[in-house]
Amino acid sequence: MVGASDDEHGLRERVRSDARRARAAATELGPATRDAKDALLHALAEALPRRCDEILAANAADVESARAAGAEASMVDRLTLSEGRVAGMAEGLRALAELPDPVGEVVRGSVLGNGLRLQQVRVPLGVVGMVYEGRPNVTVDAAGLALKAGNAVLLRGSASTERSNSALVTVLTDVLREQGFPEDAVRLLPCHDRESVRHLVTARGLVDVVIPRGGAGLISAVVEQATVPAIETGVGNCHVYVDAAADHDTALRILLNSKTRRTSVCNAAETLLVHRDLADSFVPEAVAELRTAGVTVHADERVSRLVGDTEGVVPASEEDWDTEYLSSDMAVAVVDSLGEAIEHISAHGSGHTEAIVTENLSAAQRFTARVDAAAVMVNASTAFTDGGEFGMGAEIGISTQKLHARGPMALPELTTTKWLVYGEGQVRPAN
Amino acid sequence: MVGASDDEHGLRERVRSDARRARAAATELGPATRDAKDALLHALAEALPRRCDEILAANAADVESARAAGAEASMVDRLTLSEGRVAGMAEGLRALAELPDPVGEVVRGSVLGNGLRLQQVRVPLGVVGMVYEGRPNVTVDAAGLALKAGNAVLLRGSASTERSNSALVTVLTDVLREQGFPEDAVRLLPCHDRESVRHLVTARGLVDVVIPRGGAGLISAVVEQATVPAIETGVGNCHVYVDAAADHDTALRILLNSKTRRTSVCNAAETLLVHRDLADSFVPEAVAELRTAGVTVHADERVSRLVGDTEGVVPASEEDWDTEYLSSDMAVAVVDSLGEAIEHISAHGSGHTEAIVTENLSAAQRFTARVDAAAVMVNASTAFTDGGEFGMGAEIGISTQKLHARGPMALPELTTTKWLVYGEGQVRPAN
Repeated sequence: MVGASDDEHGLRERVRSDARRARAAATELGPATRDAKDALLHALAEALPRRCDEILAANAADVESARAAGAEASMVDRLTLSEGRVAGMAEGLRALAELPDPVGEVVRGSVLGNGLRLQQVRVPLGVVGMVYEGRPNVTVDAAGLALKAGNAVLLRGSASTERSNSALVTVLTDVLREQGFPEDAVRLLPCHDRESVRHLVTARGLVDVVIPRGGAGLISAVVEQATVPAIETGVGNCHVYVDAAADHDTALRILLNSKTRRTSVCNAAETLLVHRDLADSFVPEAVAELRTAGVTVHADERVSRLVGDTEGVVPASEEDWDTEYLSSDMAVAVVDSLGEAIEHISAHGSGHTEAIVTENLSAAQRFTARVDAAAVMVNASTAFTDGGEFGMGAEIGISTQKLHARGPMALPELTTTKWLVYGEGQVRPAN
Repeated sequence: MVGASDDEHGLRERVRSDARRARAAATELGPATRDAKDALLHALAEALPRRCDEILAANAADVESARAAGAEASMVDRLTLSEGRVAGMAEGLRALAELPDPVGEVVRGSVLGNGLRLQQVRVPLGVVGMVYEGRPNVTVDAAGLALKAGNAVLLRGSASTERSNSALVTVLTDVLREQGFPEDAVRLLPCHDRESVRHLVTARGLVDVVIPRGGAGLISAVVEQATVPAIETGVGNCHVYVDAAADHDTALRILLNSKTRRTSVCNAAETLLVHRDLADSFVPEAVAELRTAGVTVHADERVSRLVGDTEGVVPASEEDWDTEYLSSDMAVAVVDSLGEAIEHISAHGSGHTEAIVTENLSAAQRFTARVDAAAVMVNASTAFTDGGEFGMGAEIGISTQKLHARGPMALPELTTTKWLVYGEGQVRPAN
């Protein structure tokens, strides 16, 4: 009989063995030329639609299980693949092939006084671990980005997408082999046991970085357990602050786009702060527009007083200011000053994206200087924090931490650097 | 009576309270101009020699305790301050003032198709935690670097330097106050209990990065426990590989400088690998020179055969290849090929500094491309991996991890970035 601890030991060994195989693959992949990597991406883009039937069959089984388990419609929608969605993945891979190869870029270079020639060059990270939930397209997006940057990737998706992910990784590994790349460059880890995440994020020495992508719970669990360096992504308790000197129409447009363009994404706004000088006129109109768009307003006392007993307006509790709703809900408060807005954001924000609407230069300067976040918007929607919108051509996540990368991450963020020093026998003097 | 768990709770609260005070100070410090920060550094450089008496008195008490506890002479030497050493700290602060301010540097900038003006600018990290051993000068060096980059710093030195560190931090905080800066920008944490390290490295949300500086045990303990992002520094199991096409004299010069310039530093070489084609002539001479320099040679079988029964040559065990001696010891092996040297380094190296000596271009190219380390030297001593030597003007440590910074870290590595996006009311289209 196999006891729980044997299973546990087996799972750990399985994850570490996958990591070792990925590591060996990374060594082969690192020196690959851009031409070879782009040919691989194009071959993948060709294979996915060609093998659409087997991908959709596997996906249908995942969808059926999710429905049988009573999953919400929105979750089923995120999970469901179609010919169009598979074609979209292929399109993403072709776009990736068009992007410059970050590997080999000389970041800095100089000749020292003693004649040593110094170069800091971009090199692949090595083995990248991805822990993610939901959409199966992340499997292909993340693998494509990792491979283009010369990395092997360990994928740990959710149990609900297991069959879809497995079908996609089969296509990926088949094409890797056909193109003369090591198939271990992409490995799908067991996804039914939470412990596989722990084994992945503690495989120090085997895995170079872990990127969690998903809800706050997933991200916290990874960061708390990890001994491998991890990059926090994506929790966005974003604010729109409407300053005393805001243009009324601009403020409404930015507010509605920030809140309602897509409510389920991390760059959606969750709290509106309005300067008191503007509150009498702005708050009732903003709340009316939010209500028209189907948004439930969680109002502080001053907002409640201004809008009275309106349907869909509920009193805000202390928790509301810290909540990333990811839904048609918005907390709304009146503040006495720009300084109070900055303090509120400092106390409750998650360091993702913060926006100010103002025509006043010194207010804009103070907000951008004092607000501590990955992205600070002046008179623009929070929805713009996105690798594609920023012109990066792709995105593997949005970092909300300060080390390594902050904000949208794409190809250069999946590399590290190496110092190359060329001499002719130089030695260092005793002091 | 106060039980252990109350003490424990008290220590945790003390560390977290220091972190909160540092956090508040960081908010004030971040927007400080370069002129104000440089004036602070010059004032510190003036105060340290002026207050040398109180610093040396505190240091004498530390030295006496260390002697009474039977500390080794080398440890006592590292610990001991003198007028000259205090003047050296002041000189370091003046040099720091000459360096450009990293804060505010525009790293990238562009105008997007929709007219949004995008800027990625350098900003301070916020609160930096330093965990270190030994020399009290690290207290001043680390504080100076952190302050110049606009950060507050939490210092956790070793118990053996407590009185010295405390005297130095008293000077630092007095000058901070005199110069109109928040004195909480530099806080010295309790150093007698290992638990204070744990409380520091788990203060997620209060501390932005932790940098351990010291032996392998300290660094591992920090990285294993940390939930705050940490930067691994300094473990250097560095190799010198003498290729078949090496110039004999160049190889000897680089070998001796790499091993014997200073044996106790992380960029010192610990293993010599010699290509078999050169072994008959090179190994006996290299071993003789190492012996003359007082180095004990840990020889593999082929080396033992070449040098016979020489005094100071001992057989290498498997452990030797993984050992960072930090002493007058060196492991020496003969390898059959460049490939075998690369494999040996990949299996045993710590990713710090690796050197090849060769006149052959393709060997140099293969070595630099395949060896995975922070710095790779071609025909140059491993001793050059150093912030000062690389022209950075300073150094807070040498990162051996791949995220954020790799190799010597100075001012820019103590910053993060922030995206600033300036618009005129732009919103993002639905898709």
